[in-house]
Amino acid sequence: MTDAALRRLLDERAINAVLIDYCRLLDVMDLDSLSSLFTADCFVDYGPDPQLQSSGAAALAESLQRMWRWTKTSHHLSNVSITFDGDDCADVQSYVYAWHKRADGTVATILGQYIDRFLRCDDRWLIARRRMLMNGCNENFTVDINRLERNKAPDDWVAPDIDRSRRAHD
Amino acid sequence: MTDAALRRLLDERAINAVLIDYCRLLDVMDLDSLSSLFTADCFVDYGPDPQLQSSGAAALAESLQRMWRWTKTSHHLSNVSITFDGDDCADVQSYVYAWHKRADGTVATILGQYIDRFLRCDDRWLIARRRMLMNGCNENFTVDINRLERNKAPDDWVAPDIDRSRRAHD
Amino acid sequence: MTDAALRRLLDERAINAVLIDYCRLLDVMDLDSLSSLFTADCFVDYGPDPQLQSSGAAALAESLQRMWRWTKTSHHLSNVSITFDGDDCADVQSYVYAWHKRADGTVATILGQYIDRFLRCDDRWLIARRRMLMNGCNENFTVDINRLERNKAPDDWVAPDIDRSRRAHD
Repeated sequence: MTDAALRRLLDERAINAVLIDYCRLLDVMDLDSLSSLFTADCFVDYGPDPQLQSSGAAALAESLQRMWRWTKTSHHLSNVSITFDGDDCADVQSYVYAWHKRADGTVATILGQYIDRFLRCDDRWLIARRRMLMNGCNENFTVDINRLERNKAPDDWVAPDIDRSRRAHD
Repeated sequence: MTDAALRRLLDERAINAVLIDYCRLLDVMDLDSLSSLFTADCFVDYGPDPQLQSSGAAALAESLQRMWRWTKTSHHLSNVSITFDGDDCADVQSYVYAWHKRADGTVATILGQYIDRFLRCDDRWLIARRRMLMNGCNENFTVDINRLERNKAPDDWVAPDIDRSRRAHD
Repeated sequence: MTDAALRRLLDERAINAVLIDYCRLLDVMDLDSLSSLFTADCFVDYGPDPQLQSSGAAALAESLQRMWRWTKTSHHLSNVSITFDGDDCADVQSYVYAWHKRADGTVATILGQYIDRFLRCDDRWLIARRRMLMNGCNENFTVDINRLERNKAPDDWVAPDIDRSRRAHD
């Protein structure tokens, strides 16, 4: 029981490392190394546009060349939530703050989530399926990423008055 | 001793999961599930305005309906620091990057901290007290959140000259 | 083997705590406590300007007084990657979203990385070397931080057409 708990912690550490490596490798545009974090037959879905979906790690690496549209990026990962499904599978949700700068200096930011299916393959944890969701973005980001569903306010909901004037705020 | 250390790691994992669930459930506005992360008699204090303070999990869920003022939110949690106080209590500090978008497209961002008291209740870790602090925010955020105290510069402090011109920066 | 794995997890927890303490202590400008996170003979390099490099913990504390140029800061740490080099050394990479506000209300943001060398000294993990890299920043940040190197696009690379019009985006 103690051993099992420790193994889970080590598995979680390994999965977390893959999530972080993805960000780091994307930000330096080392797409070959990045693709090795995915299963050969992975499916990755950033949005409904077929250009935003890839079947297989090789196709993913080629598709992510689109990130060269930006001159700089920074992907900040957080909120990692891991649910094991047997010993060798895990459903993993994480948040990403993804910052992108264009050659003209404009900045496009996306606040998103990765919804991943991880598999253990020969003692390594790999991403078998990734679906990206977008909680929101700033006005400069215009790629059609899958949207997060959010519960709606009841019809009779009335907004409270808690927003002070801007002047009152230092 | 080894078992005690492992139990601590597992407790920290459980506490971390509660912090993350709060963010996720707030971003989808599942307030019933969110309130189950708090003790029934919790006290939550986002700011000095009585509308920003809640006594009890049910009142909290009702109060957080104010988040429907925003059309989208994204709460990115990090910098989790946990100090145990006995086996069943913990003081927990974390940072949050909280992004909010209005229907008019304006974005309000707050850089904050959660200062929490966790209790273990029937094998689950719950938030008994939460105080939110604000390190800062952008100009569009006007809610009066509690402010972080910061040490002041000595009277004889002189700013060094290390900010280059904007043009020199690519 | 189990004990060794658990010790590693505990070491990683201790290293992670140092990274987080640095952010927290910097944001409240408790520079004396902050300097105790570094070895006495540490070397810290934020950029090529000699004013951005410090030899020794005492010099670092003095140099970081420059942060009083900002009226508020918030340092959000993530993407922690730890590689041990023997039992008492570790190479640690992390990401930081560093937010700074000036007295005039302008906000300067940097998306960066800390590339650290940690040493275990008398049972405490301390930062012996820190090099900061900048993935990018917004237009208001003008300090010359070391730049992240990023692979370049092949000469024959052509940007795909996946950026929708801003109007089409809600």
